[in-house]
Amino acid sequence: MASPSRGERPAIILVRPQLGENIGKAARAMLNFGLTEMRLVAPRDGWPNPSAGPAASGADIVLEQAKVYASVADAVADCSHVYATTVRKRGVTKPVLHPAEASREIHGQTGKSAVLFGPERSGLETDDVAVARSIVTVPINPEFGSLNLAQAVILIAYEWSKGEALASPPETDLDPPAPQGELDGMLGQLDGMLEAAGFFFPPDRAPTTRRTLRTLLTKPGWSAQEVRTLRGVLSALDGRKRKRVEQD
Amino acid sequence: MASPSRGERPAIILVRPQLGENIGKAARAMLNFGLTEMRLVAPRDGWPNPSAGPAASGADIVLEQAKVYASVADAVADCSHVYATTVRKRGVTKPVLHPAEASREIHGQTGKSAVLFGPERSGLETDDVAVARSIVTVPINPEFGSLNLAQAVILIAYEWSKGEALASPPETDLDPPAPQGELDGMLGQLDGMLEAAGFFFPPDRAPTTRRTLRTLLTKPGWSAQEVRTLRGVLSALDGRKRKRVEQD
Repeated sequence: MASPSRGERPAIILVRPQLGENIGKAARAMLNFGLTEMRLVAPRDGWPNPSAGPAASGADIVLEQAKVYASVADAVADCSHVYATTVRKRGVTKPVLHPAEASREIHGQTGKSAVLFGPERSGLETDDVAVARSIVTVPINPEFGSLNLAQAVILIAYEWSKGEALASPPETDLDPPAPQGELDGMLGQLDGMLEAAGFFFPPDRAPTTRRTLRTLLTKPGWSAQEVRTLRGVLSALDGRKRKRVEQD
Repeated sequence: MASPSRGERPAIILVRPQLGENIGKAARAMLNFGLTEMRLVAPRDGWPNPSAGPAASGADIVLEQAKVYASVADAVADCSHVYATTVRKRGVTKPVLHPAEASREIHGQTGKSAVLFGPERSGLETDDVAVARSIVTVPINPEFGSLNLAQAVILIAYEWSKGEALASPPETDLDPPAPQGELDGMLGQLDGMLEAAGFFFPPDRAPTTRRTLRTLLTKPGWSAQEVRTLRGVLSALDGRKRKRVEQD
């Protein structure tokens, strides 16, 4: 998905993750946004972990390719750009980036990038953060900060994917607005019906009322097909009247 | 977090959610980013649900304040701006927005906004989507799309929270769209007239035709005043028929 001219896809590095289930969820989060390279530093329960697969909901390729390292230093040895995700401020003298800023950097630079995520309960240790050049912090509710590991991973992966034009950007099936002549035809039909219904009263208000209606019905930007549908509606309402009158 | 001069905080509406655990996780996702208003449409296992609290990890306030509705129409009756989240393309003729675009809209507009999320397995039904003016789609890996409910909620909440830090957007003089309940009133009036006119023929096409009309008439985002004007138009067309019939 990444082309050679753009930044390499970053590695997601889980540092001392505790539960296999969370490793699986992180894999799922990654693959949703096209990230496939997971690295595990000293996973608590060893690797492979039987709880990871079911939680990955099909993102098995990420788990199968995951590599295990004994230390953060080993895991980032080939990385040129290391980011440490933290929630709390730590008084460390490193740039603190929003995920969107970190994502832009990752896309813009050459060389391997990696993003470190700490253990579920405690987050990254100061020594882990020291390895990184920058800190990435997701700004959360100061009164309720409770992002789990997979959620932190998905937000970073999501931001990164924005720079990728991953899935084709959402296409819309919207048709262009109908040519003005077709809209005018509909307005004319309605106008005739309203005229017959005595809607334009008092007569000196008629121009204003007509302008109001035109504004209202121009606002939607209905397509030619939509205008045809509405003319069908008007004809039905009109025909119903005629039919009733004929029947009576 | 929201100030009155900016867009109101959106309501998160879970439509027919299945597991209480997922409702709790969605609440946690919301509160991380400062969203507190959850609405539940026909939760499968009723409400309250004992599985929700533990999964909310402390976001109890969101669950305690959650309101339950029997239908999507009831849940959005006071909302001027309704967004439907979907993953799949549906060939519906509505604008499809990236979460970032939807978030910018929500911050810029007056009147209540709401974002609809479908049930875990199936997502929103076509009839649920028909209520919305726009669709919000998270662009995900075309080869692995597996976002769960809480993840979809957290991405929307995260994007929304970004706009909270921004300067207030330029305000527009446009009136907000009428609350959905007022639009529904107009749709009901038209429907009654069309029913009487024999418009819905053949009968098995009626649901599709009704959906088409709803989509068409939801598209403009007419204000409350505009909806009143249009109801006057409908009443005139209806009254004219009655008058004619009486005169004949």
